[in-house]
Amino acid sequence: MELLKVYQQTLAERLQTVVNKEEPSQLYDPIKYIIGLGGKRLRPTLTLLTADFFGGNVEKATHAALAVELFHNFSLIHDDIMDNAPLRRGKETVHEKWDVNTGILSGDAMLILAYRLFEAYEPPMFQELAKLFSKTAIEVCEGQQYDVDFEIRDDVTIAEYIRMIDYKTAVLVGAAMKMGAIVAEASQECQEGIYEFGRNLGIAFQLQDDYLDAFGDPKNFGKQVGGDIIANKKTFLYLKALEKSSASVSSSLRNLFSISPKDPSEKIQTVKKIYNDSGASQATLKEIEHYTEKANSVLETIALSNEKKEKLREFGAWLMKRSV
Amino acid sequence: MELLKVYQQTLAERLQTVVNKEEPSQLYDPIKYIIGLGGKRLRPTLTLLTADFFGGNVEKATHAALAVELFHNFSLIHDDIMDNAPLRRGKETVHEKWDVNTGILSGDAMLILAYRLFEAYEPPMFQELAKLFSKTAIEVCEGQQYDVDFEIRDDVTIAEYIRMIDYKTAVLVGAAMKMGAIVAEASQECQEGIYEFGRNLGIAFQLQDDYLDAFGDPKNFGKQVGGDIIANKKTFLYLKALEKSSASVSSSLRNLFSISPKDPSEKIQTVKKIYNDSGASQATLKEIEHYTEKANSVLETIALSNEKKEKLREFGAWLMKRSV
Repeated sequence: MELLKVYQQTLAERLQTVVNKEEPSQLYDPIKYIIGLGGKRLRPTLTLLTADFFGGNVEKATHAALAVELFHNFSLIHDDIMDNAPLRRGKETVHEKWDVNTGILSGDAMLILAYRLFEAYEPPMFQELAKLFSKTAIEVCEGQQYDVDFEIRDDVTIAEYIRMIDYKTAVLVGAAMKMGAIVAEASQECQEGIYEFGRNLGIAFQLQDDYLDAFGDPKNFGKQVGGDIIANKKTFLYLKALEKSSASVSSSLRNLFSISPKDPSEKIQTVKKIYNDSGASQATLKEIEHYTEKANSVLETIALSNEKKEKLREFGAWLMKRSV
Repeated sequence: MELLKVYQQTLAERLQTVVNKEEPSQLYDPIKYIIGLGGKRLRPTLTLLTADFFGGNVEKATHAALAVELFHNFSLIHDDIMDNAPLRRGKETVHEKWDVNTGILSGDAMLILAYRLFEAYEPPMFQELAKLFSKTAIEVCEGQQYDVDFEIRDDVTIAEYIRMIDYKTAVLVGAAMKMGAIVAEASQECQEGIYEFGRNLGIAFQLQDDYLDAFGDPKNFGKQVGGDIIANKKTFLYLKALEKSSASVSSSLRNLFSISPKDPSEKIQTVKKIYNDSGASQATLKEIEHYTEKANSVLETIALSNEKKEKLREFGAWLMKRSV
């Protein structure tokens, strides 16, 4: 994945220049701060990769790629306020370093700045990109709302959960790739195909995140292993375990997810045992495979050289093999 | 201003249909709620009026008008969180009725929905409108930030204050009118002219708001008379009084603006006396006149019939004569 590193480097440089205003500093400093925290730049990299694969100009795709990254960071600022999260990428979150009001307003400005990046394109492409962006952005808001709603609901179905991660995470991955295809002026079929590829890969990616949160290697996993269990988060593992367990085990699991012990290690062990014994762990791995295969099978329908398809498949496999 | 009433009625009806999604209800109910609180619909009315005056199709201008109104309401939701305001138009604010997180997310969705309204236009007009919208939206964020910054600064200049109200309030009035001109495909000169007309009127309007907050008739003024004085808000009146007073009176005024007595009536009376005695009240009225005249003189440069110019002048006068 050498190419990805080149793209990441380009994006890192360009992101430094995307906010060129200094004043009012209380508005723009937090934006520069969160951009400066780094991250994998996965989504904008996908925009550049896709533009390239469809024979487009990577430089031309950069504006759209940066818009995707700004949007992603906007959603992180506002989500961190809502989740009351103190840390992001190991550093203070914006509302912690400044305050909630600053987080709200800087986030708003960042969303608007994301839209402005499309102004570099001619009107028809501008409209296509901005429409896709708005559709995706509203879905991300809906996904975030479902996620919040699920916290107090105890009747969340697996289908609802998949829709939530689809909206909250996957559609932006799909849109990031589709934007690359739009800039490359790929056919409508190719645009739709690559969108579905990215979207299914995005669902697989999020399910794997759920899985690794419980079963990842503490040495490699970037977050606290067991974090979702500690936070009583109803992940795919949890919902699947409820579905597959006897009434009494389900009841124990529900009880465990209503408490927050000071030392959570025993709770984590018990929950993980239920996840394994119930077959929920296996079912999650199978679901990850299902969405990865779905992504790959969509690829078959796209007019792209076999070599490039293979590279996209490799990319998916690389993404899924990560233990972090 | 019969025409305005017709437009207001049309807008009220159309605003009911602009959010057609039900789920997730926690995301869309607050949007419907704040839209349902009513208000004068001043900004979108100006979009329709301007489109009509430049020979455009009012129905066609409605999407842009609704975008302006959605944006305005988005900014109200987020500003009310930042100001910790319990009431808006006499009813609970969104974050009071629901909670801060709901206010943040519903506001975000509302901003995106505003952008989506431009999708009704063909690509070139879509781009023109969206560009103006983004430029204006970022200025409104900057204005809000300056307003927040001023709370803790004691060296705010009058020029800085005018820039703040220009960004926070006036540019959106100008943009609302310019959008009408864009939809009507008026010339570039007309578009710029009507923008400056609206913008200067917007500054005059906000200065009058400052004035009425202290000297308005309690029976007619919608808000608590003296509210700015109670909140120690550095308005044009305050800054002008500091400029025009002796060192000792300035010092008293600064002191009065550092206290928050339980019964504020004596403080209000003293401050109003300083505003009057220093000539700040007169200077404010003069400044209102200055911006109103500036607006009217821009009108002279626009290719519009004298009859329509007269109507715009009347409209400005009507706006300025309001005691509420």
